[in-house]
Amino acid sequence: MYTLILLRHGQSAWNLENRFTGWTDVGLTDQGRAEAKSAAALLMDGGYDFDLCLTSVLSRAIMTLDIVLEDMDRLWLPVEKSWRLNERHYGALQGLNKSEMAAKYGEEQVFVWRRSFDTRPPELTPDDPRFPGHDRRYAGLTDAELPRTECLKDTVARVLPYWHDVIAPAIQAGKRLLVAAHGNSLRALVKYLDNVSDADISQLNIPTGVPLVYELDDSLKPTRHHYLGDPDAIAKSMAAVAAQGKAK
Amino acid sequence: MYTLILLRHGQSAWNLENRFTGWTDVGLTDQGRAEAKSAAALLMDGGYDFDLCLTSVLSRAIMTLDIVLEDMDRLWLPVEKSWRLNERHYGALQGLNKSEMAAKYGEEQVFVWRRSFDTRPPELTPDDPRFPGHDRRYAGLTDAELPRTECLKDTVARVLPYWHDVIAPAIQAGKRLLVAAHGNSLRALVKYLDNVSDADISQLNIPTGVPLVYELDDSLKPTRHHYLGDPDAIAKSMAAVAAQGKAK
Repeated sequence: MYTLILLRHGQSAWNLENRFTGWTDVGLTDQGRAEAKSAAALLMDGGYDFDLCLTSVLSRAIMTLDIVLEDMDRLWLPVEKSWRLNERHYGALQGLNKSEMAAKYGEEQVFVWRRSFDTRPPELTPDDPRFPGHDRRYAGLTDAELPRTECLKDTVARVLPYWHDVIAPAIQAGKRLLVAAHGNSLRALVKYLDNVSDADISQLNIPTGVPLVYELDDSLKPTRHHYLGDPDAIAKSMAAVAAQGKAK
Repeated sequence: MYTLILLRHGQSAWNLENRFTGWTDVGLTDQGRAEAKSAAALLMDGGYDFDLCLTSVLSRAIMTLDIVLEDMDRLWLPVEKSWRLNERHYGALQGLNKSEMAAKYGEEQVFVWRRSFDTRPPELTPDDPRFPGHDRRYAGLTDAELPRTECLKDTVARVLPYWHDVIAPAIQAGKRLLVAAHGNSLRALVKYLDNVSDADISQLNIPTGVPLVYELDDSLKPTRHHYLGDPDAIAKSMAAVAAQGKAK
């Protein structure tokens, strides 16, 4: 039996401002840093330890991981960063305020953009400064891999190769993994692991900064999963994530 | 022509307490964090950028690198950590105060321990809790690789394979490298690059937190090197490093 820990980054500057973030590279707030420290404490209390850490190429996930590793005295662990663990790309919505968009287009439309499995937000054009093709960190991606927008189905499609090529083989080689990533790249993984339907995944919200423990059998099928920490606080945090698309 | 940046970590807790540190994993002081931030500012002012970062498995070097990368908006860069870039192992001196040792054994003896090329400090026994064989991060090392003590000659011997296997090929592949490491692993590299004699290397002191720029020709021979920043401050910092072995 294997254990895999998933961790969504702590609150970011744009979580706080309630803006669509996607691949925009914003940092953590003080609360986000505190959430990361609390995640480290929960992991240590639970006796968890790691051999390899995986994260995205976005600062808020890397900073969360660094804080956890520093508090656990594990800064020396190897860390691999991949764009495949990035947040879902929000296309032309990136930078816009979720409540303002709800007031303008209706909460229904914003819910569809946020949670529909296969409806994409409006896409960026390649001349838009927000298009990832302008960012050196994505220089190794093919034209087809550079997103102009993504629905969750697209995110699943680019996260899963990383599961099959990197995460699953490392787990089966006996490595204890910590994956520090984002709301939607983790929802993509959870959808695959737990075989969540396209309809049900829209109701699944992952709180920031709370370690999510998956126990997996020899074939990497989940036998059980649970969050570490206080269940009431976690429920509140999940409800807050779900409420971000309200007009007020 | 290639450029390589070497950076000694900022002031650590034991630099401040004037203790022999070696492989002891102590963190940065507030001043050490400030030095790392100032290194980042100097690198940005100089227009430097990187493709790959190398560091040791010791927190003070990794924290210095993380601060630099955060300030440069380069947290997404790949980072490789290797024990071969660790500080020199100080054997049974680790944890002891340099001035107290000078008062007890004489400044001459402490200078020999600190700066002789081929005199080793007293060695640790494998049952000593400070022996690296007890630390999981060194589980991949062979018995011969696990140091009980090191003179600089030993440090050179374990740093150079990393130069030949990792650093040099990466530079020649066109990658711009930042190496965040330690006083003696960097002296080992500098000794090799500049072909410094065994006698002269004892007088070479590397200040904490100041980027050292090497310009290398096609065959990786140095054509020039210089520190970034204010020359007076750097000279002062080097003199302070040299003075650490005084009795008072």
